[in-house]
Amino acid sequence: MAGNTFGTLFRLTTFGESHGIAIGGILDGCPAGLLMDIEFIQQQLDYRKPGQSKLTTQRKEEDQVEFLSGIFEGKTTGTPIGFLIQNKDQKSKDYSHIKDTYRPSHADFVYEEKYGNRDYRGGGRSSARETACRVVAGAIAQLLLKEEGVEIHSYVQQVGHLTLLKEFQDIDFSKTFKNDVRCPDETVAEQMEELIKSIKKDGDTIGGTIQTLVRNCPIGLGEPVFDKLHADLAKGMMSINAVKGFEYGSGFCAPEMKGSQHNDEFIRTEEGTKTKTNYSGGIQGGISNGEQIYFRTAFKPVATIMKDQDSVNKEGEKKTVKGKGRHDACVVPRAVPIVTAMTALVLADHWLRSKTSKL
Amino acid sequence: MAGNTFGTLFRLTTFGESHGIAIGGILDGCPAGLLMDIEFIQQQLDYRKPGQSKLTTQRKEEDQVEFLSGIFEGKTTGTPIGFLIQNKDQKSKDYSHIKDTYRPSHADFVYEEKYGNRDYRGGGRSSARETACRVVAGAIAQLLLKEEGVEIHSYVQQVGHLTLLKEFQDIDFSKTFKNDVRCPDETVAEQMEELIKSIKKDGDTIGGTIQTLVRNCPIGLGEPVFDKLHADLAKGMMSINAVKGFEYGSGFCAPEMKGSQHNDEFIRTEEGTKTKTNYSGGIQGGISNGEQIYFRTAFKPVATIMKDQDSVNKEGEKKTVKGKGRHDACVVPRAVPIVTAMTALVLADHWLRSKTSKL
Amino acid sequence: MAGNTFGTLFRLTTFGESHGIAIGGILDGCPAGLLMDIEFIQQQLDYRKPGQSKLTTQRKEEDQVEFLSGIFEGKTTGTPIGFLIQNKDQKSKDYSHIKDTYRPSHADFVYEEKYGNRDYRGGGRSSARETACRVVAGAIAQLLLKEEGVEIHSYVQQVGHLTLLKEFQDIDFSKTFKNDVRCPDETVAEQMEELIKSIKKDGDTIGGTIQTLVRNCPIGLGEPVFDKLHADLAKGMMSINAVKGFEYGSGFCAPEMKGSQHNDEFIRTEEGTKTKTNYSGGIQGGISNGEQIYFRTAFKPVATIMKDQDSVNKEGEKKTVKGKGRHDACVVPRAVPIVTAMTALVLADHWLRSKTSKL
Amino acid sequence: MAGNTFGTLFRLTTFGESHGIAIGGILDGCPAGLLMDIEFIQQQLDYRKPGQSKLTTQRKEEDQVEFLSGIFEGKTTGTPIGFLIQNKDQKSKDYSHIKDTYRPSHADFVYEEKYGNRDYRGGGRSSARETACRVVAGAIAQLLLKEEGVEIHSYVQQVGHLTLLKEFQDIDFSKTFKNDVRCPDETVAEQMEELIKSIKKDGDTIGGTIQTLVRNCPIGLGEPVFDKLHADLAKGMMSINAVKGFEYGSGFCAPEMKGSQHNDEFIRTEEGTKTKTNYSGGIQGGISNGEQIYFRTAFKPVATIMKDQDSVNKEGEKKTVKGKGRHDACVVPRAVPIVTAMTALVLADHWLRSKTSKL
Repeated sequence: MAGNTFGTLFRLTTFGESHGIAIGGILDGCPAGLLMDIEFIQQQLDYRKPGQSKLTTQRKEEDQVEFLSGIFEGKTTGTPIGFLIQNKDQKSKDYSHIKDTYRPSHADFVYEEKYGNRDYRGGGRSSARETACRVVAGAIAQLLLKEEGVEIHSYVQQVGHLTLLKEFQDIDFSKTFKNDVRCPDETVAEQMEELIKSIKKDGDTIGGTIQTLVRNCPIGLGEPVFDKLHADLAKGMMSINAVKGFEYGSGFCAPEMKGSQHNDEFIRTEEGTKTKTNYSGGIQGGISNGEQIYFRTAFKPVATIMKDQDSVNKEGEKKTVKGKGRHDACVVPRAVPIVTAMTALVLADHWLRSKTSKL
Repeated sequence: MAGNTFGTLFRLTTFGESHGIAIGGILDGCPAGLLMDIEFIQQQLDYRKPGQSKLTTQRKEEDQVEFLSGIFEGKTTGTPIGFLIQNKDQKSKDYSHIKDTYRPSHADFVYEEKYGNRDYRGGGRSSARETACRVVAGAIAQLLLKEEGVEIHSYVQQVGHLTLLKEFQDIDFSKTFKNDVRCPDETVAEQMEELIKSIKKDGDTIGGTIQTLVRNCPIGLGEPVFDKLHADLAKGMMSINAVKGFEYGSGFCAPEMKGSQHNDEFIRTEEGTKTKTNYSGGIQGGISNGEQIYFRTAFKPVATIMKDQDSVNKEGEKKTVKGKGRHDACVVPRAVPIVTAMTALVLADHWLRSKTSKL
Repeated sequence: MAGNTFGTLFRLTTFGESHGIAIGGILDGCPAGLLMDIEFIQQQLDYRKPGQSKLTTQRKEEDQVEFLSGIFEGKTTGTPIGFLIQNKDQKSKDYSHIKDTYRPSHADFVYEEKYGNRDYRGGGRSSARETACRVVAGAIAQLLLKEEGVEIHSYVQQVGHLTLLKEFQDIDFSKTFKNDVRCPDETVAEQMEELIKSIKKDGDTIGGTIQTLVRNCPIGLGEPVFDKLHADLAKGMMSINAVKGFEYGSGFCAPEMKGSQHNDEFIRTEEGTKTKTNYSGGIQGGISNGEQIYFRTAFKPVATIMKDQDSVNKEGEKKTVKGKGRHDACVVPRAVPIVTAMTALVLADHWLRSKTSKL
Repeated sequence: MAGNTFGTLFRLTTFGESHGIAIGGILDGCPAGLLMDIEFIQQQLDYRKPGQSKLTTQRKEEDQVEFLSGIFEGKTTGTPIGFLIQNKDQKSKDYSHIKDTYRPSHADFVYEEKYGNRDYRGGGRSSARETACRVVAGAIAQLLLKEEGVEIHSYVQQVGHLTLLKEFQDIDFSKTFKNDVRCPDETVAEQMEELIKSIKKDGDTIGGTIQTLVRNCPIGLGEPVFDKLHADLAKGMMSINAVKGFEYGSGFCAPEMKGSQHNDEFIRTEEGTKTKTNYSGGIQGGISNGEQIYFRTAFKPVATIMKDQDSVNKEGEKKTVKGKGRHDACVVPRAVPIVTAMTALVLADHWLRSKTSKL
């Protein structure tokens, strides 16, 4: 299995290389009768697209999604939703200099070893351009989840050493997309923007983290044992280009905590059974418990830098490579809609899966 | 899909509750002709079993694995390997006090909501007892990987605030199982042991982390896009009870790093193309590159504590619960063989998957 | 993928060889809250078990199913149902004479080629003994379907040249299990019995067909394109040992028919929209339409005969083989509960799958 | 799972409605390094396309396949192969008369019931137009199998009462596509053609069968138990529109045969171990044995006829429907490349699966 399908009941299969004719996908298993809000889907894509601000790569792509099937008279029909995004600004000439040389911390070397050949134009299939298809399918998943009242909020929490330290209840999520860096706090956003610009000027890149909060998730999503809800969320996030770590709830703070601190005691409220604290991150035993789900995804700095680096070519000869082309200095601003999309894909899939848990 | 199967070609399906008659599994897809080293498999189980030291729960289980099929004349036949582990020391009486009350940070509440009922004896399916089956299958995966020269080393790196800070090259992995805490450094192990004992005496529990190192992994394991090698490792680890976070390579340090620091330049050595540094953690673009793979898994403190906690029952009435029974004060010592098992399952699966990548 | 799992949401995975310690399986995905009628399940197994009449092999097996998990207080819990059937009357000595020689029309040769070795005791995994596990899971599927009012009737329609020609409405299905041959017509059953006995006396074997009728199947089961309901039924039946053909509705008569004869016109009745005729066999476009589903499964004669046959051994030397052991002269009487089981597995799976077709 | 994916390692996922913008698919899991013979692929499509002769529907479609990814410098790269076929001659006006009325023996009624709505333009997803995508992927599977020397020959064996009775060794397969009916015997082909024309003139339709022969299939393809090679072939063929039956080897003749007749004795030849006869149809115990694989697929008459038929509409009112539009009077001539494609998809998948059967 070649791994280009995600999900079990709500299933996305994608295709496409960075510099091919088009990228696209098939979303299978979306229930019939869902109203397609094309504008919402395109907006999610726009949040991801290159060239949208000074912070992002200047590759120009309209990234207009074209739906080919599965929608009739404005609603899903229950049949597979096929969609395409054309690659317009391909400029594959830019890449001839790395045809035979492996770019450090890129997938060039491993593709060559695994497949015996590679599409060297812009990284081919290993390019993050592929994630545009996830955003399309994830937007449809969001439409499905909205019917249940589920809200997903992702935002840039950290760029380099700069971190937004606010609690969720103090964050105004309507501000996230009001700045180019996708941080819902004007002051911190401005600092992050300055940092990215200075890093870029230097020809370098920088990492960051994205925080995600899910509100109103129904109780009971997630399967015990292997397909725990957080295990599938982890897989979804870790499958995004450049991601190096995932934690939910107490995460990497948990190892230092005692059970008496960490346990979330149950209380009865007007809304039903709730927990006093939420170190569990809204998931217990792999199953959503109705509390807020939250997790954090860590991104490494973009591998393409405008500096000379040592490398070797296919023949093992020493070479120097230096990024040309148009690249992001920090990936997290454009990754926000991708993280949201993967979250929505996981939740929509588990929501459908939960329909047959009991008689 | 109810999520009791792990893997695509090397597939483990498990069953069993903590206090049922037996737990067990079916391992499907193991190639024919593999020599079964039953002693090795049992040893892995022994490293996980309860009651093995003063640090672990005093539940007494022999945890003797019984193979029922798929092995003939000492070798695998290519047909499914069925196996059983009896539950001998079930003592389900211990659990009647929590029949109707939800234990904080356990899965009682979510099971009840999801399934409309639950096996309240010792957590039923949500108990970590289920992981014994993973250890059996993971040990077979290790036997398969050993044929390729792959080595997997997991060890306790952190308990509470105590952390082993040694570099891999300075660690003697033969020492890991020489102490009860499974830390390959006598001094730190002793401190960790003292900490766990004092926590236990207090009726409390503590978290920890496990570090894993994989050596000699063949180049080319992992599929681009969704089934990246580290995405499947993340899912595997996050599916283990009590895990809250996963990071590989530079992990949560990556967000603060610059590309010029983080990139692993290629060099040519006698062994072929290698990288100077290894922030990538042995995986680039989701595919193993032949360098050391390393990752870290964070565990929360065990939820069962010997202290009074507030909770509610099915009817929403306030109740007090306090752990009885026999429980671990820290889960990481017994989790070491589980983490190794899940690592082996992921690698064996991807090794088989890699066989059809090219003509 | 080694192919020991059947179904997508209602999933059976099996293990076990004819002469191993035990055979068994894991049924994953059965919804919680289903009342287990153990007697019914055991009865289905009894209909399949060897040694039950003079018509069947004299191998003595109690075939008592033992449930190990997934059932609590008489109901399914939603967790995997593990079960075992011991192999008591193994007598593996019987098989040493065919250790190195390939029995004609058995799987000995292909197993040896595929796996590089084989468990030669009674055919190992290729033995129809494995189907006992299907009967267990299929009986649980029947319990689930009964809640929806679905009825499945399978019976022996043909043995050799003898065929029961009655229309469904003229058949009293309560008679099927009242005779050893499992044909719901005393006169034809008697003739079939005589035929099988005379064939057996001669050391030979004979083929047959099983007809299946499903009543009250809900409308809407089956997925368009690849997982059409009849495509999955075909796969289910063809996966049973000794099956050579499958047809549903008009089947192999359809090629000679005209559209004007074959089309099932719609009419409105008190029960809703129905069809006048039912050449479609209750399935249109791969989806159940509420009419009776019917299909026919063709079985070849059992390969083990008590006559000398030419063969070769591993080294390619000419050998003579002759069946010893205890074998059926005709497989269809014992295959009736197996065909019913596979039908139930397919329908239960598609019933669960249909739950997410629309909002 | 919505059932739009076929195969496990060599996986085709398709999308598209009869009268949407385009149909297409993603083929995932094709090994890297396979030389793409685009002309061969297009030729297979041309054999299926509408309007190619007087025998077929006059819908005009170029059915030009456009590859969007997965191919670089003339070879597969190991990444998913995305492809499109535009729907040019859509003429959806033709179908407004059946917007609310269910065509007999079509899927209109069941789609409406299953999904709560349907794309009534030309049957939407239930149209056989979808099979064009299978032909594209099947042609790539054939290219892969050709590297192993595998040959697949499908041909029309029966139209109505007319049947070609020749043995395989007497058939010249190079003649199959030399006539419009796809029967490799000029005389019988001519008779079939006359029959179809006269049926068409009458506004009626007729059924038929397709015979398939596979030569040089490697030994060892197919998995024991559920995924037997013939079980997957059965599913593949039964998933094609209008198919009502499948048999392989002795098929529906087997029930009347004795074991002493049916068993295929082994002999030793220069080519290795072979069988004297081949009632097994090249598959034993679900695994290919190196002999010729052959099977027969039965098709019903096309449901759209140019005659008045009774039906009902959504509201249950009686209506008369009569086919308009452009339809085939007999489906088997155009189904030949589809049957071949599905055969190739099954064999290619099992060929990849067989790579990990043993160490």
